[in-house]
Amino acid sequence: IEIPKEGNKRVVIVGAGFAGVQLARKLARKDIQVLLLDRNNHHTFQPLLYQVATAALEPGSIAYPVRKIFNHYKNIFFRMGEVHKVIPVENKILFEDDEIYYDFLVIATGAKTNFFGNEGLTVNSMSMKNVVEAIDLRNMILQNFEESLTTNNPERQKALRTIVIAGAGPTGVELAGSLGELKTKVFKHDYPEIPQEDIKVILIEGGDRVLSAMHPKSSAKAKKYLEKLGVTLHFQTMVQDYRNDCIKLNKGPEISAHTLIWTAGVTGDPIEGLKKEWITRGNRILVDEINKVIGSENIFAIGDIACMISEKYPNGHPQMAQPAMQQGWRLGKNLIEMIRNGKPKPFVYKDKGSMATVGKNKAVAEIFGWKMGGFIAWLIWMFIHLMSLVGFRNRVIVLFDWIVHYFNLDRGIRLIIRPFDIHEARRKRKREMDKERKEQQQQ
Amino acid sequence: IEIPKEGNKRVVIVGAGFAGVQLARKLARKDIQVLLLDRNNHHTFQPLLYQVATAALEPGSIAYPVRKIFNHYKNIFFRMGEVHKVIPVENKILFEDDEIYYDFLVIATGAKTNFFGNEGLTVNSMSMKNVVEAIDLRNMILQNFEESLTTNNPERQKALRTIVIAGAGPTGVELAGSLGELKTKVFKHDYPEIPQEDIKVILIEGGDRVLSAMHPKSSAKAKKYLEKLGVTLHFQTMVQDYRNDCIKLNKGPEISAHTLIWTAGVTGDPIEGLKKEWITRGNRILVDEINKVIGSENIFAIGDIACMISEKYPNGHPQMAQPAMQQGWRLGKNLIEMIRNGKPKPFVYKDKGSMATVGKNKAVAEIFGWKMGGFIAWLIWMFIHLMSLVGFRNRVIVLFDWIVHYFNLDRGIRLIIRPFDIHEARRKRKREMDKERKEQQQQ
Repeated sequence: IEIPKEGNKRVVIVGAGFAGVQLARKLARKDIQVLLLDRNNHHTFQPLLYQVATAALEPGSIAYPVRKIFNHYKNIFFRMGEVHKVIPVENKILFEDDEIYYDFLVIATGAKTNFFGNEGLTVNSMSMKNVVEAIDLRNMILQNFEESLTTNNPERQKALRTIVIAGAGPTGVELAGSLGELKTKVFKHDYPEIPQEDIKVILIEGGDRVLSAMHPKSSAKAKKYLEKLGVTLHFQTMVQDYRNDCIKLNKGPEISAHTLIWTAGVTGDPIEGLKKEWITRGNRILVDEINKVIGSENIFAIGDIACMISEKYPNGHPQMAQPAMQQGWRLGKNLIEMIRNGKPKPFVYKDKGSMATVGKNKAVAEIFGWKMGGFIAWLIWMFIHLMSLVGFRNRVIVLFDWIVHYFNLDRGIRLIIRPFDIHEARRKRKREMDKERKEQQQQ
Repeated sequence: IEIPKEGNKRVVIVGAGFAGVQLARKLARKDIQVLLLDRNNHHTFQPLLYQVATAALEPGSIAYPVRKIFNHYKNIFFRMGEVHKVIPVENKILFEDDEIYYDFLVIATGAKTNFFGNEGLTVNSMSMKNVVEAIDLRNMILQNFEESLTTNNPERQKALRTIVIAGAGPTGVELAGSLGELKTKVFKHDYPEIPQEDIKVILIEGGDRVLSAMHPKSSAKAKKYLEKLGVTLHFQTMVQDYRNDCIKLNKGPEISAHTLIWTAGVTGDPIEGLKKEWITRGNRILVDEINKVIGSENIFAIGDIACMISEKYPNGHPQMAQPAMQQGWRLGKNLIEMIRNGKPKPFVYKDKGSMATVGKNKAVAEIFGWKMGGFIAWLIWMFIHLMSLVGFRNRVIVLFDWIVHYFNLDRGIRLIIRPFDIHEARRKRKREMDKERKEQQQQ
């Protein structure tokens, strides 16, 4: 791999998510060579993935080419590909067919879906952590409704019209709300042949309320909104297995559903070659207060993959965009300082609050301790998400799509672009799972 | 398949392209039951596919859900799926797992890419007849440029940076022009590490000019525009084979290219079960002057699949949007008339002219005999295409994207959403080709 020499030191950043991009931005135009690596050529605005999955937004509105973010900075280089391994003692990583040396390595690889080793779930459920998964979900849901009109099997028809979401965190709640809107406002016109009561959106939660990280009042509000949109809620309920379109719960009857969306857990996605003692609970990398991997000299971890234990956050910071961006920003400043032989400052997380939207005029928000609901919370949610999107085009088009939805609640993007073959996907997941298991046994 | 009984007679339309959609529209709100079938859930605006392939537009801007077009008409039903066979003597078709009876059947299945039986081309080249192929092309081209920066093989690097288009009809010319713009205006900033002269866009044509259906003056203009955008042209050149990234021509040296886009021919895509004598040259269905299949009583064919021989068009009408839409419209009127026991009117094609755009301010148009070029032609081209798009949202977003391009020539959608595995695709094409051959031998 040829990379022209630029600047004093080379910082290699693995992952162009919120943390990695923020860090690279901070290092722009400095006397440092930045090499940003990602397996995709785009940065994804994950908080709006659920709107791609439910045909409200185009994937191109929430994904942004990495090269376009950085093409004005001469010291930032991007390469798309797979990091196979890190070799800390030699200060190098194996990337595609090459070895790349680093002065500083920053791991910002984020988190992936955690199926907790359950084979039925891993192989048969859908997850929604990237653009491809969100599009697959959109294709699959629309396809199910189309197929439910051509199948002659009443059992299958029932399963095709039932969507179950497991996990009532922000992702699960926003997805369920959006599917509720799809059911009550869009499918009513698109599928006049399907009786409304045949379309089932079911949200399953292990705890006793939705959005458990928020105040109980916000949870109660969100629950009310979900019910208004026709979402069925099951609390203190856990999915035990999912096979042959049949969801087995810890209590109550089984649910027949062709789609189960798993939003009930994430786990870190570290790189091979990291020392075992660096990895802690949830597959996260243990870092000190300047995000340096504990026990290492020049390797850092930021974002969802990093676990910085503090008094206020004994399990590390929440795995969300805000801490990731703030860590990227702080580490950027610190690296510049450290390269100048200055002293880095410890990271302090500023919790700006949290919010979730369920549907039109239906959101809950807790900002600097203030609790809000309804239209105001929804407006704030929209404004903050719009401003956080990268790029002028994306903001304009998302705003336009949202305005159109607001007035007629229609969703233009209900396209099945590439028929999703769930059987093929399941076979692939099975193969991958078997391979992973084998590798773990060999270790 | 359950379809509520509506209206007097049932018209089954196979294919929701320009012809099929236009026909269904004409039959809306009449005392006729219309059943529209397609293997996709969307109508595709094919003339702009090349802009999806070259990262200028989102697929959602040129595809439109069929249900959304018709969800206000109670007499029009849509089902997504595959038509396996037509059984004319029984007035029925086999659709998915069902038999469907028709009073009138209209075949509007369009055309597919014609590789003229060349195995190397069929298996190894790319085509661009639908949204999935356009996205695959976009993914592939961007991927090639990314990989060309990580590979250590100089031969492969060269092939990855070369794109060849075969066929200088409207599709080939517009695609080549758009790739030329990508090369000269966008990749310059995105890939400062790649020397401009290393990026090759080559257009190959068997005849001696581009856009051979237009006036030689228009051809000359288009050629000049293409050359300005850095496109290399080869005339009187034919692709003989394409294997292992190597294009063999009828003359001159071989070209090493990872991407060959085949736009040099289409062939009709008829349904199984049609009588052999109904099919004519180019796999098209022979129809009379009211688009009735010659030799049949109640089967019609419209659009690219139909071949209506007349003095002015001894080989049938050109396989383009205009004749397809006009035939759909005329057949709609005729069917209404025929059901009322009236007399159908023969179809007369009104040729409104043709046009092609090469790049910003660079287009050629021949409208009602007037020949235009440059900015004016380009404006007219844009206006007509914008107005032809289905749906308010699509028009606004395409207009917005075009305005942004106009001022900074940037293309926001350069996303590799789903890495395109060309080897897997080639294996699949090989399997399909072997299967087709076997079937043909058995017949």
